Amino acid sequence: MIRFNNDYSAGAHPAVMEKLLKINSGRYPGYGEDPLSYEAADLIRKACAAPDADVHFLTGGTQANALMVTTALRPWQSAVCADSGHINAHEAGSVEHGGHRITALPSKDGKITAAQVEETALGFENNLFRDHVTEPKMVYISSPNELGCLYSRLELSDLSRVCREHGLYLFLDGARLAYGLGASDCDFTLADIAALTDVFYIGGTKCGTLFGEALVITNDELKYGFRNAMKQFGAMLAKGWLIGTQFGALFEGGVYEELGREADRKADRIRAEFAALGITPCAPGNTNQIFYYLDSRLADALSDRFVLEIMEKTADGKVMARICTSWYTSDEDVDALIAAVRNYS
Amino acid sequence: MIRFNNDYSAGAHPAVMEKLLKINSGRYPGYGEDPLSYEAADLIRKACAAPDADVHFLTGGTQANALMVTTALRPWQSAVCADSGHINAHEAGSVEHGGHRITALPSKDGKITAAQVEETALGFENNLFRDHVTEPKMVYISSPNELGCLYSRLELSDLSRVCREHGLYLFLDGARLAYGLGASDCDFTLADIAALTDVFYIGGTKCGTLFGEALVITNDELKYGFRNAMKQFGAMLAKGWLIGTQFGALFEGGVYEELGREADRKADRIRAEFAALGITPCAPGNTNQIFYYLDSRLADALSDRFVLEIMEKTADGKVMARICTSWYTSDEDVDALIAAVRNYS
Amino acid sequence: MIRFNNDYSAGAHPAVMEKLLKINSGRYPGYGEDPLSYEAADLIRKACAAPDADVHFLTGGTQANALMVTTALRPWQSAVCADSGHINAHEAGSVEHGGHRITALPSKDGKITAAQVEETALGFENNLFRDHVTEPKMVYISSPNELGCLYSRLELSDLSRVCREHGLYLFLDGARLAYGLGASDCDFTLADIAALTDVFYIGGTKCGTLFGEALVITNDELKYGFRNAMKQFGAMLAKGWLIGTQFGALFEGGVYEELGREADRKADRIRAEFAALGITPCAPGNTNQIFYYLDSRLADALSDRFVLEIMEKTADGKVMARICTSWYTSDEDVDALIAAVRNYS
Amino acid sequence: MIRFNNDYSAGAHPAVMEKLLKINSGRYPGYGEDPLSYEAADLIRKACAAPDADVHFLTGGTQANALMVTTALRPWQSAVCADSGHINAHEAGSVEHGGHRITALPSKDGKITAAQVEETALGFENNLFRDHVTEPKMVYISSPNELGCLYSRLELSDLSRVCREHGLYLFLDGARLAYGLGASDCDFTLADIAALTDVFYIGGTKCGTLFGEALVITNDELKYGFRNAMKQFGAMLAKGWLIGTQFGALFEGGVYEELGREADRKADRIRAEFAALGITPCAPGNTNQIFYYLDSRLADALSDRFVLEIMEKTADGKVMARICTSWYTSDEDVDALIAAVRNYS
Repeated sequence: MIRFNNDYSAGAHPAVMEKLLKINSGRYPGYGEDPLSYEAADLIRKACAAPDADVHFLTGGTQANALMVTTALRPWQSAVCADSGHINAHEAGSVEHGGHRITALPSKDGKITAAQVEETALGFENNLFRDHVTEPKMVYISSPNELGCLYSRLELSDLSRVCREHGLYLFLDGARLAYGLGASDCDFTLADIAALTDVFYIGGTKCGTLFGEALVITNDELKYGFRNAMKQFGAMLAKGWLIGTQFGALFEGGVYEELGREADRKADRIRAEFAALGITPCAPGNTNQIFYYLDSRLADALSDRFVLEIMEKTADGKVMARICTSWYTSDEDVDALIAAVRNYS
Repeated sequence: MIRFNNDYSAGAHPAVMEKLLKINSGRYPGYGEDPLSYEAADLIRKACAAPDADVHFLTGGTQANALMVTTALRPWQSAVCADSGHINAHEAGSVEHGGHRITALPSKDGKITAAQVEETALGFENNLFRDHVTEPKMVYISSPNELGCLYSRLELSDLSRVCREHGLYLFLDGARLAYGLGASDCDFTLADIAALTDVFYIGGTKCGTLFGEALVITNDELKYGFRNAMKQFGAMLAKGWLIGTQFGALFEGGVYEELGREADRKADRIRAEFAALGITPCAPGNTNQIFYYLDSRLADALSDRFVLEIMEKTADGKVMARICTSWYTSDEDVDALIAAVRNYS
Repeated sequence: MIRFNNDYSAGAHPAVMEKLLKINSGRYPGYGEDPLSYEAADLIRKACAAPDADVHFLTGGTQANALMVTTALRPWQSAVCADSGHINAHEAGSVEHGGHRITALPSKDGKITAAQVEETALGFENNLFRDHVTEPKMVYISSPNELGCLYSRLELSDLSRVCREHGLYLFLDGARLAYGLGASDCDFTLADIAALTDVFYIGGTKCGTLFGEALVITNDELKYGFRNAMKQFGAMLAKGWLIGTQFGALFEGGVYEELGREADRKADRIRAEFAALGITPCAPGNTNQIFYYLDSRLADALSDRFVLEIMEKTADGKVMARICTSWYTSDEDVDALIAAVRNYS
Repeated sequence: MIRFNNDYSAGAHPAVMEKLLKINSGRYPGYGEDPLSYEAADLIRKACAAPDADVHFLTGGTQANALMVTTALRPWQSAVCADSGHINAHEAGSVEHGGHRITALPSKDGKITAAQVEETALGFENNLFRDHVTEPKMVYISSPNELGCLYSRLELSDLSRVCREHGLYLFLDGARLAYGLGASDCDFTLADIAALTDVFYIGGTKCGTLFGEALVITNDELKYGFRNAMKQFGAMLAKGWLIGTQFGALFEGGVYEELGREADRKADRIRAEFAALGITPCAPGNTNQIFYYLDSRLADALSDRFVLEIMEKTADGKVMARICTSWYTSDEDVDALIAAVRNYS
């Protein structure tokens, strides 16, 4: 079976695994206070052109999101995101478990606009009953997002400006950031993200590591006490160097950017072929995730050799499916999928 | 100024104040373990035909809601309610502060249907990714609700059945229950509510007391440890007998039902008059709250002598206003309002 | 039965009840935004010589404590108090329920010293594993405390200095403040407390009101968003003016100070008489609470006419009992108790 | 430098690393629902003679503790443990962050007795003010504990009996379980632990894995909803098979027991040698951790070649140091340490 269902079906990128093996016989101080973690943090600060940023290594995305939101907000403050946002739709209420309400904004492509955020902020500021509602204080976006779409530099910059005007933190979930940076139409850099947000994370789990996300905090207000918060949350890995090592491997020789670019190129091939066959995606992204409403017979036919992620079955006999490439997708995998779809048509 | 803006603009009903005065020189055990509280609880159990119910006296509605939801649910479980439900719209994120997500269902009249609840329950049960979402476990309804509408006995009974079939608790917020029971078209009794829900509360603050709500727990699963939870939440009044005393005054001589009926009769007069003038309410309720989109000039004209609750101003120059009667609304107040509106038209 | 068990066995002080009655026919805006609350807040600011303080009216002590601690602290920060401190010993884990750890310091008289606080602060600052523990950030004291003892002005001033040096908030629980200010050896004023702490509350429930505490926030860092936090916590009374009214009655004509002084004078009579009979109290306070280890036969004998608070029974056949005077204790009550004890001896 | 400071200074045991490498090119379903995890869970159930146990793989000890305590307890319930217990002393208030109070019992060797637990349970049951305190509901023990001591089978059995009599859950933190099972005086088996507790975990991080703990739930009451709770807590690893794989490697060929036994044997050599030199440990354990008060000059002398964990410096010029062996400690490491100490003496 060839897996196109997600981008976390395989272990580590060879470069990552090699480095893990190499350092396995070493001995290191615990809890992320080790040379390997420091080195990786430096590489990341450099890649982000953010010399004063705090970099923390966490084990997974839901953990990073929940910990960051809970740590940043006071009890009566809430997070704002797209209705399809990962914290709203796929994390089992982790933000609410941390005590905070989410204001979910409607979105067709998983993105929210500066205008929506401004309206939300003004809605609170002008609310006649503002003591009776939560104060929006953090905007959560993901890029690429849950529908494979990417913010443009201008959109990020507008969001950033509105957030700063109204005193909201901008938090970018970069679980799939490599596949964003590698997209043919990506017009922002890591340094742009670092400059425009208050905190973001560079995803590892879906982009080459066994596990691990690198949280980058640029806003000083969010830095204090974070290691205590990590420990309290159960998010401080005893052998912290393991995550540092993996990010070191990804950022030393440009591996991170390359693996993203390659996966996107493969997704582009699939997009082009499906388009040629008249199958159009649900959302206009150019990253590694593509969502299609497929005829259920086609989905069935493909299921012999391919694993797609079936998101839902519609009333009119279609299935909404995700096709996902990743650093471990080969051109042969893509060839096989294309051949199978052509064959069916 | 004559206040029609809400039903909590005055102190206590005379019968309540009289009893508070009478017992003011007495001495009582603390924390609700006193004869006055026990007596009131007995009266309530009797009125509800629920001899085994636990009755707890709390100081306010948000407290009652937040405490009950938090105590009933396990960390990963969520509450379900109408989008306009009080816990979702007016309580500053208290349920989320307690760690729980709210699933808000769309509703035009503030009511949710058994079909909506069933769909929500099935949505979880059939969810392919059910580990990644919260489990709906409690349905919160208010009756009369935030738009002045009332559930019928059949609607309650359908909700109750669906909840029991799917293992959800049904919690009724009765902050304005007196005005529900007194409505001309009310077809349920306190005993019906006790039989059909797992827990509900009989509102005092808006129905004759200085403050205080009587929580009635009928489902045994929700009884254990509740006094500890109350104390922990800061919801156990040192002089608990004060709430017991007030509910005693309301339930001894039928005061509760009568004050609701009278307030509704006055609201009916307003409804009839406005209808005659061609002004139709936003929602079809027959309780003490009426919501109108008023021409803003009419609203301005009335604001000289009357306080209405201005909920919002619409783009087309209208205001959404609440007109609210209560136990302290006099027929003269109503006459004056009617005269003023007629005069304007 | 004559109740000496606590100071919350009776309703409201006559001056308070009279004012509640007087305003019962009025109509007021809700949620504490009314003239009666504003007036009372002004009286309190004046009595505290704290013109910029925020004053909030809450319904009870546990609520005030839990809400204030939770609102002031970030997730990884903890509160520090005496082991007998109310938040540590009598509030069913409300601070922990709010997510915060309590560091309890040993104390014989219920007081903690500046040296203990400094040691705690330094213990964190110098901790080699400080990421693995909570950061002490708020010191909670009560005065008079749970054993009837009072801090001196010098002790408060020392605590204040140490807290400011180490960046800790000082929070004083004044549930029984009237009985502190009225003590023969009290050397501080309300203005001293306002100047030396960051936040404190003036207790009503035990000092003349039906219910209600007045929280006074002097530190600007603790002011922002507090009304949202109150609402979220279920601590914002719909008829907020009821608490304002009661505090107005206490602070208009010096009632608060007088009732405290009178109750303390009665406690002094009891203390003197017991001392003359060779019965010495457990702790050296001069406020309205006195704790004795009594011979259990004496306790039994007294229990025919008097209610004392039996705290515990010791292995050697004694009982630890609280004798408590209050604004409603009469000289006749005291005479009767003294006669009974003399009679027994 | 030779590290004796802890047992988490190195990567993975060779058998673990080899298996991770081997499966790195495979493709697997996410979130722990994969053949490798199922296989490992089966091996663990078999090793525990607990065919009906639920086994969940978590990333670290603090996460396992916090998640389990929070999931098991209702809001007003508390955990009971030794004052030196890991959740009380080293986890930055994670249990309190989850909303629960810890009752810490005094202990010299890090163990608590059945009598202490019974006294705590009775203390609540007989408390005259039991609504005002938390209900002890879970007993947390670690074995080996934070001082290197081990419970005997009889002690565990007594604790288990008392817990069941009083309705408390018994939770064993087995972060170092391999070093407990391998101790010369260990008289219990994994099956004993499974039978005597309600839930426990088998530590991986300190016992051969890169990271990961295997939580074993035997009490049905604690099973429901746990995967949702994991996800909500950010504790569900996307590539769950990575932990399953590692535990598979440890339990397939007896690696887990052997590595524990070997590390303990090395610690025994150190203990014997130090004893011969008149240096006695702080606590009587026979596991891989040994705590000594060392003359600070000796500690200094050793610090040239060895890393010990300096826990604290005492007023009389000594240091409390931990010497810790592990699966990666070699006999040569031990020889060197012994030689250095002999040399110094």
